[in-house]
Amino acid sequence: MNAPLVSVILSGGAGTRLWPVSREALPKPFMKLGDGRSLLRRTLDRAASLSGDSALVVTNRDYYFLSRDELSDTALTKAGKVRYLLEPAARNTAPAIALATLAVAQTHGEDAQLLVLAADHLITDEAGFGACVAQARALAAEGWLVTFGIAANTPETGFGYIESGKALPHGGYAVQRFVEKPNLERAREFLAAGNYSWNSGMFCFRARDMLAALAEVAPDLLAGARASWAQSQPYAAGADATELHGPTFTALESISVDYAVFEKAKRVAVVPGAFGWSDVGAWPEIAEQFPADADGNRAAGRALFTDSTGCFVHSHGRLVTVLGMKDAVVVDTPDALLVMPKERAQDVKKVVAAVRASGDDKHIFHATVARPWGTYTVLQEGPQFKLKRIEVKPLCSLSLQMHHYRNEHWIVVSGTARVTNGEQVFLLATNESTYIKSGTQHRLENPGTLPLVLIEVQSGQYVGEDDIVRFDDKYGRVAKAV
Amino acid sequence: MNAPLVSVILSGGAGTRLWPVSREALPKPFMKLGDGRSLLRRTLDRAASLSGDSALVVTNRDYYFLSRDELSDTALTKAGKVRYLLEPAARNTAPAIALATLAVAQTHGEDAQLLVLAADHLITDEAGFGACVAQARALAAEGWLVTFGIAANTPETGFGYIESGKALPHGGYAVQRFVEKPNLERAREFLAAGNYSWNSGMFCFRARDMLAALAEVAPDLLAGARASWAQSQPYAAGADATELHGPTFTALESISVDYAVFEKAKRVAVVPGAFGWSDVGAWPEIAEQFPADADGNRAAGRALFTDSTGCFVHSHGRLVTVLGMKDAVVVDTPDALLVMPKERAQDVKKVVAAVRASGDDKHIFHATVARPWGTYTVLQEGPQFKLKRIEVKPLCSLSLQMHHYRNEHWIVVSGTARVTNGEQVFLLATNESTYIKSGTQHRLENPGTLPLVLIEVQSGQYVGEDDIVRFDDKYGRVAKAV
Repeated sequence: MNAPLVSVILSGGAGTRLWPVSREALPKPFMKLGDGRSLLRRTLDRAASLSGDSALVVTNRDYYFLSRDELSDTALTKAGKVRYLLEPAARNTAPAIALATLAVAQTHGEDAQLLVLAADHLITDEAGFGACVAQARALAAEGWLVTFGIAANTPETGFGYIESGKALPHGGYAVQRFVEKPNLERAREFLAAGNYSWNSGMFCFRARDMLAALAEVAPDLLAGARASWAQSQPYAAGADATELHGPTFTALESISVDYAVFEKAKRVAVVPGAFGWSDVGAWPEIAEQFPADADGNRAAGRALFTDSTGCFVHSHGRLVTVLGMKDAVVVDTPDALLVMPKERAQDVKKVVAAVRASGDDKHIFHATVARPWGTYTVLQEGPQFKLKRIEVKPLCSLSLQMHHYRNEHWIVVSGTARVTNGEQVFLLATNESTYIKSGTQHRLENPGTLPLVLIEVQSGQYVGEDDIVRFDDKYGRVAKAV
Repeated sequence: MNAPLVSVILSGGAGTRLWPVSREALPKPFMKLGDGRSLLRRTLDRAASLSGDSALVVTNRDYYFLSRDELSDTALTKAGKVRYLLEPAARNTAPAIALATLAVAQTHGEDAQLLVLAADHLITDEAGFGACVAQARALAAEGWLVTFGIAANTPETGFGYIESGKALPHGGYAVQRFVEKPNLERAREFLAAGNYSWNSGMFCFRARDMLAALAEVAPDLLAGARASWAQSQPYAAGADATELHGPTFTALESISVDYAVFEKAKRVAVVPGAFGWSDVGAWPEIAEQFPADADGNRAAGRALFTDSTGCFVHSHGRLVTVLGMKDAVVVDTPDALLVMPKERAQDVKKVVAAVRASGDDKHIFHATVARPWGTYTVLQEGPQFKLKRIEVKPLCSLSLQMHHYRNEHWIVVSGTARVTNGEQVFLLATNESTYIKSGTQHRLENPGTLPLVLIEVQSGQYVGEDDIVRFDDKYGRVAKAV
């Protein structure tokens, strides 16, 4: 098989049911599991291990810096083989896959194969998945659009199903039909029938076959996608990214690739497999990733269970104690906590809606806020003062800025800072400090190769984030907020 | 009634079942309820409203500064009418009451009446309680040792009971007998009988009658108490306190006043009442102090309930969300969290034991630690650095000290500090900062009348609390740790 394989990683999952860890500003693909790797990172690692020639991450423009940070430490990135397609808005999977196909056709030719992966799924049996991918590639090489089916082992009502028809070579089947999420009775029938599998939302196909299918069953979408691709530009803030053209992309119909293409196209195959796949859609699936104690309790972080069974605790450093509970889920974050029975895990959306309705912004932001240059965490806030921990990535820099109302004390607790304070530019070593008076232009940079951590104490009449005037910014934010 | 009334406040309740809010270093009497007043403060306010001539707080030496802080802002304290008896160790109520009686007899004469109150109870109907106290005083004036009974309205198995005998004047009854905590069946019998009330642990009597009773039924205890009283000294660190003599006090039998005196003495009366009394012994009783929503959920702090009924949330500022729970209790503190069903509230001790067994110290300390001069809170800690918020009370001062390994940056965020930094002594206003190099003698003082709040960033090879050399300390801690 000589055709190149490009892994297309669709990184758009909001993960509302995984609140309060997954939030709008740092959604599900960035969630870190047991070994510290995010779901996105795991997906890229998986793609790399399948001898993918390169990867294309399709994500919202807002997640570009975050995604690049997550993936910076991978061989594929270091080899310059990870590129980004940046969406101005979410338009479901069909537009994303159409654009990705056009991009791959242009860079790798129409014979190139695309392996479409979701950035927020988990696969524990990587070898098993690799075998399925090999089958799928063989079918794709013969012109099939291939879906990956997950061998159903429970009458799951949360997934769509694929009915397998006639057997094809390479262990695949022609797809008989796609079925929407069934009720329990039908799900049981499917399980009994044996020729149904769950629709995993992962695909493999040649660029030319997807373009042909689009031309046949979704010509408007293809035309719109071509128009958008023609006007898309290299992203100003990153040479490895293409920014999809806003108006034309946003004009595309928001529709899944299943509806738009796979349910209508002719040569559609399914490769059923069992490779420890999970869409980790809700907390119980996350819990499954951690070992259970003798009473079936699981913990990510510090937890003490007393007379409790089947519980799950996600802790962020605090001590979580659970007494006399059965099948309870406790998710602890620095600024918000969720307690529920496991069986209500699908309803976390209701909590998120309640948080939104309460006027809070904890459905959007975490206590730690990611910025292109690193992160900041508000540790404490009071009248006329705010205390932040700031971490600046190596060789990164905050904008040259000025505040009207607040003074800032900076104390370096690790690494070295280069500080612009009015006319002066100087280095600040660990344990050194400086004072930025309000009205003074200043800039904070990390000139080193280790992370720079500093404590900032703000004081003044007003310490809101919007008291900022930017004069120069590496990340194109001069005219924008924060 | 011309005899003076001294309110004796026994402030010793550990409140283990109220973990993680109540901890060894800041136990139940210091817990703050809805209006921000601690249980101890409420008890003093109650005593003051009963036209108490003065109050005597009996507490452990370790809680002296904390107690004084809690009570500093009361008229009784300002009038110099609150004094402290400091115990070197806990010896239950009989020794405490014996010593308090000796103290009152000395300061106010043997005709003075003592009203013994627990610092960790709650009384919502203060007027009703006042009426009972008036009845009790009338009986005490006639030589009775009076207990306060709580009219039983449920077959409670968590309290001892008092059986009323013949009716006395002033609405009281001679005590027929004291009964230990009954099982449910007996508790139901008591409730049906109608002449049983709960033993509240509050008492009223003349000093001379208690001394006489002690002489008759507990002569060893009285002799030991007299010996201890004779050797007790004014407390070096506070003119309003007497430090009970360690060896002689510790030698006293640890026994309750019920066992030692009331069950054996002759003229013992009970005044039964219903005045919204609660010993707030466990979380459900705390919950009762907060209004319920339409679904019976109650909250102290920020909480969002979704599809939940009968739950209670205690939050310390974080957003606590509860989904689909029934009768759950969630107690949130900055460093520890407890989740349990209401019905397990009596078993929080098991959690505390598990915390202790885990090697953690969260059963003893809070994130915010009280010191004679104020408080400190560790906001964040990392390798070779520690971030603290320090609050110094007006006119208070930390010791003159020195650290071998850590440097300290101080930034004043409110109030004014007087700083000794080596040879220099200078004022630091809000928003000013200074740097204390390791090896330099330094002192932090609040010379003003407003609280001083500062952020301290420690950095150095070692930032443990035990890297401290004290040269001079207002609170007698030169030779001791921290």
